[in-house]
Amino acid sequence: MHIRILGSAAGGGFPQWNCGCRNCSELRAGSLQATTRTQTQLAFSPDGQVWFLLGASPDLRSQIIATAQLAPPPGDTTGSPIAGVFLTSADVDSVMGLLHLREFQSFFIFATPAVQRLLKNENRVFDVLHRADPPVLWQTLSPGARLACRFGEDPSAPPSFVCSPTSLGCDFPDFVSTELRRTLPSSEAVLALRFEQAGKSFCFAPCLSENSGEGMKAAASSNVAFLDGTFWSDDELIQTGRGQKTAREMGHLPLSGRDGLLAQFPKDSECRKILVHINNTNPILDESSDERRAAREAGFEIAYDGMEVTL
Amino acid sequence: MHIRILGSAAGGGFPQWNCGCRNCSELRAGSLQATTRTQTQLAFSPDGQVWFLLGASPDLRSQIIATAQLAPPPGDTTGSPIAGVFLTSADVDSVMGLLHLREFQSFFIFATPAVQRLLKNENRVFDVLHRADPPVLWQTLSPGARLACRFGEDPSAPPSFVCSPTSLGCDFPDFVSTELRRTLPSSEAVLALRFEQAGKSFCFAPCLSENSGEGMKAAASSNVAFLDGTFWSDDELIQTGRGQKTAREMGHLPLSGRDGLLAQFPKDSECRKILVHINNTNPILDESSDERRAAREAGFEIAYDGMEVTL
Repeated sequence: MHIRILGSAAGGGFPQWNCGCRNCSELRAGSLQATTRTQTQLAFSPDGQVWFLLGASPDLRSQIIATAQLAPPPGDTTGSPIAGVFLTSADVDSVMGLLHLREFQSFFIFATPAVQRLLKNENRVFDVLHRADPPVLWQTLSPGARLACRFGEDPSAPPSFVCSPTSLGCDFPDFVSTELRRTLPSSEAVLALRFEQAGKSFCFAPCLSENSGEGMKAAASSNVAFLDGTFWSDDELIQTGRGQKTAREMGHLPLSGRDGLLAQFPKDSECRKILVHINNTNPILDESSDERRAAREAGFEIAYDGMEVTL
Repeated sequence: MHIRILGSAAGGGFPQWNCGCRNCSELRAGSLQATTRTQTQLAFSPDGQVWFLLGASPDLRSQIIATAQLAPPPGDTTGSPIAGVFLTSADVDSVMGLLHLREFQSFFIFATPAVQRLLKNENRVFDVLHRADPPVLWQTLSPGARLACRFGEDPSAPPSFVCSPTSLGCDFPDFVSTELRRTLPSSEAVLALRFEQAGKSFCFAPCLSENSGEGMKAAASSNVAFLDGTFWSDDELIQTGRGQKTAREMGHLPLSGRDGLLAQFPKDSECRKILVHINNTNPILDESSDERRAAREAGFEIAYDGMEVTL
């Protein structure tokens, strides 16, 4: 499996348009040892030819343009190597990029029934995806179930890969009303996605909360895990003047502390651990910081845009 | 007035993610004399300090990041020089970028009642804008009326600038259902926006159809007009294998031909004419093309990302 990290930042990217925190200000001034980051987006290919997107980030257009493997093959006026999109949630960070894909192209969208309902019934703007002929094809992701994905015409062929979604115990996004929220199963709100092919596996879990024990296990049992690196400390937004909520109140386990992700991730796991979804305020973005060194020493890599992993 | 063209392409940008037309293929291969373009977006400032966005393009995050004038002032952790957004329609091209601005910032959004209804009632995802404290402030644009915009505390001060919206006689976007469309005044679907300050004026009209006579007049009476440069010829999408509809069927007057924009734009106008919203298939993007030369010889400039105009 070929995996490419098209974007590695949390919502808003790095720098963030309206943010004057130390990281963003110094990055703009050129005085921070750090690189710009677009919003978290992965692409993976089971065969090096056909590609699937994990999430549909707000920066998806520029991320695709920056990636030669995702360009239409020369001589093909209407083709794209992108066959489908797996959605982990209905958050703006995860779905806005679908609107970038509105150019009359058919592809698969894999999402839970609740996420599909939020997109199709509550947000008519996503109807632009149905202008394609044939229109986009919605496929159901069910937490706990294994989805075998095949290519080609032969239904008896072995699956090319298997996707196993796990509920992360997180909530639906803020834009979902209280009334509507009551009618949607919370297990369908936010997923970790584990992909397996020929005995190798990776897991994409860009949002991990205190309730994400099952997702943590799915990640720990994979060869590679892309994990929630949003915040270093619980009060990071408050300390940087960027918000009133703690990391935990926003549904993210911070990286540091006795109860943080670095300490809590299963110690017996042999997986390669790569942090994604890194918020602009997170000190690990500063390549000279103590926090970055501490994350590295705890065995966690810090993703960057354009990073590639082959399994 | 300071005007900056942050993006100059039509929907999808140039190159377009799934397009293998001659322009896009040769641009990717580096063999076309042309520059990449993000989707059409203007910013203007009445005083060089406070900025307003015209449209909210799907590429808005990267467009803001690329523009030093739009960065938060150093030392201000929560500020932005962006005070508001004027929407010309509810098209994805024009509104998707509002979601890029979801980072707890208050600003004004100027739109017709119909466009406001489509965003607020039919697309709950835009509720993320209301997380700001105070939330975003919606202001009404009424075709035919003049909106005087003032800054500062003194209500008796003269307006800083005046915005005059004109209906362009175009339709609501495809995602609006037939039933809903019947309840919305078509005059509120697509606007040209004319801005005036101290006797100088410019007009933003990125969509001009055969029914846009009034908008054409508003543009022709301005010092500078940013005009619909989407297609060169009526059958351009069909010829390039990128669609089944003509330019006119999509609500755009093509540039060429006896009935095209170059021939139809009022000959007695002294305004500076700048083409924006240029589709990836348009031959004027090729700097060595006959079509580009013809447009220039007819007195029309071709906008590029980063172009600046001062009035």
